[in-house]
Amino acid sequence: MKYFDDFFPGEVEKVGEYHLNQEEIIEFALKWDPQPFHIDPIDAKKSVFSGLIAAGPHLLAITVRLLGIFQPKVAVLAGLGWDEVRFLEPARPGDTLSIFRECLEVRPSTSKSDRGIVRNRLTLKNQKGQHVMSLVATALVAKKPFY
Amino acid sequence: MKYFDDFFPGEVEKVGEYHLNQEEIIEFALKWDPQPFHIDPIDAKKSVFSGLIAAGPHLLAITVRLLGIFQPKVAVLAGLGWDEVRFLEPARPGDTLSIFRECLEVRPSTSKSDRGIVRNRLTLKNQKGQHVMSLVATALVAKKPFY
Repeated sequence: MKYFDDFFPGEVEKVGEYHLNQEEIIEFALKWDPQPFHIDPIDAKKSVFSGLIAAGPHLLAITVRLLGIFQPKVAVLAGLGWDEVRFLEPARPGDTLSIFRECLEVRPSTSKSDRGIVRNRLTLKNQKGQHVMSLVATALVAKKPFY
Repeated sequence: MKYFDDFFPGEVEKVGEYHLNQEEIIEFALKWDPQPFHIDPIDAKKSVFSGLIAAGPHLLAITVRLLGIFQPKVAVLAGLGWDEVRFLEPARPGDTLSIFRECLEVRPSTSKSDRGIVRNRLTLKNQKGQHVMSLVATALVAKKPFY
């Protein structure tokens, strides 16, 4: 288990990889974001993206999933928010997305001594090294308990 | 179809409502964010939330879906990003979430005369009027075409 004490500003790591396929892009978007450029390969050709791309909430969901699968379990008490979520390059069927985490800030809670706030920049890159999405995630994380 | 020209800073509207149930909270979280407080009603009781709550990407997906279903179709060319995404109150099974849109800013593109940038604050409230999530969404929207 990874606690507040285990985060250090400046540390950078590759968290994991995710292979994106057309079926999943369409399935997610049909339910949550049925824009033509997310659900219909033919219509998507005519869009500014010239092809099918993953929906924003889908990329965010992938990011959260990769953090959960590939990181040591983090003692998250609560996710507080996301800032500066940017869609920089489209994510397309067949892309392999890698997620990188950079710790920006750790700050002990001023009201409760058993926890603190951790801010990480999360960057999703494709197999060409292009930045697909970037965001800053802020979470409330428990300190290591004393035994 | 709603174009760039149809957005006005200061306009506020209720976009739509969404009924959240336990089955969907767990189903979404099992795939994308399998934290105990999102997937297991018993474990969730012991968390800081004292019960099952919806995952962050789920709330974002609901927001995007409601915008798509209940608004006049908007000529979105691309979603550019989200800022100040804040999780303010937990969203729980049985909650009815309402989403409100406030237009913050419209700005014609300086490089292309056929489009512009629209910034909206989106607020998800529960049936008690509590703010569950808030964010600022920025999108590139086409201007009304001339015929």
